[in-house]
Amino acid sequence: MQLAELARLLGESLVGDGSVEIHQVASLEDAQAGQLSFLTAAKYRKQLDKTHASAVILHPDLQEVTRLPRILSRNPYACYAKATALLNPRQRQAPGIHSSAVVSPDAHIDPSASIGPLVSIAAGARVGVNATVMAGCHLAENVSIGDDSLLYPNVTVYHACQIGKRAIIHSGAVIGADGFGFANEHGKWLKIPQIGRVVIGNDVEIGANTTVDRGALSDTVVGDGVKLDNQIMIAHNVRLGENVAMAGCTGVAGSAVIGAGSTVGGGGMILGHLSLAEGVHVTAGTFVTKSIDEAGTYSSAMPFMEHRAWLRTAANMKRIDELLARVGELEKMLESLKGSKA
Amino acid sequence: MQLAELARLLGESLVGDGSVEIHQVASLEDAQAGQLSFLTAAKYRKQLDKTHASAVILHPDLQEVTRLPRILSRNPYACYAKATALLNPRQRQAPGIHSSAVVSPDAHIDPSASIGPLVSIAAGARVGVNATVMAGCHLAENVSIGDDSLLYPNVTVYHACQIGKRAIIHSGAVIGADGFGFANEHGKWLKIPQIGRVVIGNDVEIGANTTVDRGALSDTVVGDGVKLDNQIMIAHNVRLGENVAMAGCTGVAGSAVIGAGSTVGGGGMILGHLSLAEGVHVTAGTFVTKSIDEAGTYSSAMPFMEHRAWLRTAANMKRIDELLARVGELEKMLESLKGSKA
Amino acid sequence: MQLAELARLLGESLVGDGSVEIHQVASLEDAQAGQLSFLTAAKYRKQLDKTHASAVILHPDLQEVTRLPRILSRNPYACYAKATALLNPRQRQAPGIHSSAVVSPDAHIDPSASIGPLVSIAAGARVGVNATVMAGCHLAENVSIGDDSLLYPNVTVYHACQIGKRAIIHSGAVIGADGFGFANEHGKWLKIPQIGRVVIGNDVEIGANTTVDRGALSDTVVGDGVKLDNQIMIAHNVRLGENVAMAGCTGVAGSAVIGAGSTVGGGGMILGHLSLAEGVHVTAGTFVTKSIDEAGTYSSAMPFMEHRAWLRTAANMKRIDELLARVGELEKMLESLKGSKA
Repeated sequence: MQLAELARLLGESLVGDGSVEIHQVASLEDAQAGQLSFLTAAKYRKQLDKTHASAVILHPDLQEVTRLPRILSRNPYACYAKATALLNPRQRQAPGIHSSAVVSPDAHIDPSASIGPLVSIAAGARVGVNATVMAGCHLAENVSIGDDSLLYPNVTVYHACQIGKRAIIHSGAVIGADGFGFANEHGKWLKIPQIGRVVIGNDVEIGANTTVDRGALSDTVVGDGVKLDNQIMIAHNVRLGENVAMAGCTGVAGSAVIGAGSTVGGGGMILGHLSLAEGVHVTAGTFVTKSIDEAGTYSSAMPFMEHRAWLRTAANMKRIDELLARVGELEKMLESLKGSKA
Repeated sequence: MQLAELARLLGESLVGDGSVEIHQVASLEDAQAGQLSFLTAAKYRKQLDKTHASAVILHPDLQEVTRLPRILSRNPYACYAKATALLNPRQRQAPGIHSSAVVSPDAHIDPSASIGPLVSIAAGARVGVNATVMAGCHLAENVSIGDDSLLYPNVTVYHACQIGKRAIIHSGAVIGADGFGFANEHGKWLKIPQIGRVVIGNDVEIGANTTVDRGALSDTVVGDGVKLDNQIMIAHNVRLGENVAMAGCTGVAGSAVIGAGSTVGGGGMILGHLSLAEGVHVTAGTFVTKSIDEAGTYSSAMPFMEHRAWLRTAANMKRIDELLARVGELEKMLESLKGSKA
Repeated sequence: MQLAELARLLGESLVGDGSVEIHQVASLEDAQAGQLSFLTAAKYRKQLDKTHASAVILHPDLQEVTRLPRILSRNPYACYAKATALLNPRQRQAPGIHSSAVVSPDAHIDPSASIGPLVSIAAGARVGVNATVMAGCHLAENVSIGDDSLLYPNVTVYHACQIGKRAIIHSGAVIGADGFGFANEHGKWLKIPQIGRVVIGNDVEIGANTTVDRGALSDTVVGDGVKLDNQIMIAHNVRLGENVAMAGCTGVAGSAVIGAGSTVGGGGMILGHLSLAEGVHVTAGTFVTKSIDEAGTYSSAMPFMEHRAWLRTAANMKRIDELLARVGELEKMLESLKGSKA
């Protein structure tokens, strides 16, 4: 694709030779001729000077730092995302149902949808326009998959769960398994049947081996535009607001409510029955034990040390009580010394 | 179902109109006409006053707080669990082997069992009376699945592993993968074949994408009544006592022994080669580094703070050493001051 | 197998009766007649005295502590690993493609390879000599699986990813799902197509439900001899050096580089865009927030306490600031007292 055509499709302005052929994106360091790169911050200017890219995306304020043909964008990273998408359109699978798939005659599969090999789809399930369900996925009774959604191989969706339009669900994800609900009676655990569903909005991406449990009584709800990385655990009756993003290995316990636009770093844990306001950012490895009412950034992950220094620091923490007592004693003694002196 | 009939099946007493028709359970807040709700603690009485439920389960001591038809139970939460089960009986799959399943002629499948589409079952495997193996499960050689057990789609059970009666295993669970056993020789890792099995008792539930590894030499053992949430990792040769319950994202390292009735909150980590007594409760996010001999509750998860406050607190921890030294110095000086004064 | 034959195959010397028949390995405690055990440290000598094993592997320095027939090895644990492998050779699946597998005519499957039931393999994929792909695995376009590799059931490999020779990949592992890459534009997340691959070296083992994401622009790289336990998350563009070993539930964020021979304990978290030198050992539950330039052992996991003691300790941490201020005040007062006295 010519650079000028790319700029036009991106809706951004161009400086320099628009006839350059662009066939792929790459980082400043790795780019070769025919590749488009991007500069997201002035500090990477050194890499820009050495790049072999044929063109670059950068902020209008920085347009004079290079002589390369360049696309100007007030959000170079978003512009790069769009350019990457234009240069790497999704490979569509052929429409139709593979002969090895097992699809109930009572399922509703749009003729434009692609159902891969060794898929099973139960009665009452619906697969929308241009949706793709790849090999080995299993959709239970009355599941609904929205238009243009893509399920990679080996995704499981339990009965009655709903996935919106343009979803991307990665392999091994499990949507709608039972929430962890038990009542204790005389030391034994009685299962509480989980009769809610999972309801997922539009434009949601769910990572590999992530699990979203069905609600106990009412539904677990994932808002529009939510992005979940791999190996995340969303418990029953959680509600994720629009455009929430969570990095890998995070866990959200039952009935937590997370406000729109909030983010959780990798390995974060959010306890149950609490709520986070909109725009709350929980850093990686942080453990959230109570509700957060104000937007902002919150942390609790302990910085690491060389092992022996850490052992000493950890042991010292138990001595703060002692320190408080000794300092209190010193204060009293000093007060009495001053008194006796006066 | 009429409320009186429900009370009779639950073995609990009824106050008020037993002819009310009940078709579902719901929370006090969400309940509609025809639904049964429950009050687990006096503090939810306000919600009880406003509920649209047609009937409610509560403790005999609280029977006068409402005029609604009510079932009296000394354990309202357990009673609600049972009522939910009565009103939502498990949908049984049709018995028989789906034509797309690949079942070894040397496997033993009870005629009452249901084997779903695209399942594979290897030689020597046994599936018990009324057991259900849903789509895409893979049972290796000599696996045994007990009577009335239910495997949701995409469960994998490695060779020779045993699962007891009435198990519920959720999608993506992997039972019997190799434990992580390697010997280091000249900087390289030599695999130690894992020749133990996984042996799972009766009435066990295992969550989605949870993994239970096979033993190195002897077996990994999961006791009767154990309940494991999603994305839990049970390493080789772990022994979980009866009725242990663990919330999501927990990990238990090799050869740990966890006593009956113990619980681990979400994201807890239990190191290897240690043992926890019966009735040990490890709170969410806690890291257990040594054996615990006494029943009780144990914690280590750091409470979060606003990010900048946390950075300061974390930095301060390294100064406890300094504080101890300074306080020691002060004590000496004060002692000498007092001495010189005397 | 006779003990003498085993010693010969292991390349180690033998003391005592080499005609003993050995059919399995076992721990000192559990071993029965006909079984071989091992002593890795002098402190287990008591168990050695009581063992029913027919023979034992131990260090030459300890050869006189038992009268049992014994194999002498300078690395008894590695020797035991090899003996276990000799006594438990891997069961090979029959070569050929199972009739229920769906294999593209444009895939290249070596005739010696074994493709199990209900596997799907897309166009351009290659499966090498003596490789085994078990039931329910899905290999996308242009995937390459090296000679002698073994994929357990339900493994998914996304398009263009490469797995080297002698790999062992456990069930539920997902290789090559999209990295978590999004650009924020006006509060919404724009997907950045992930156009790199995953490239895995030789002799790598990957645990059950572990995920290794494909690179954003360039590849995610797993070096030769790397061993990953279950439920590990390797993000896009991570580079794992040779013989890195990681225990379960660890996470490595995007673009982290981990040096050869490094290890990470269970539940460790490594943040993104940093690098660890060779020979760095991160203990279980540790959170690595910045690069580590020197080999050594590093920690941050908080030791647990009885719950109430922990609550007090955690609250005390917020008082270090106060302590520092009070001690500073005391020092000033004492200085002025000494001054006035002088």
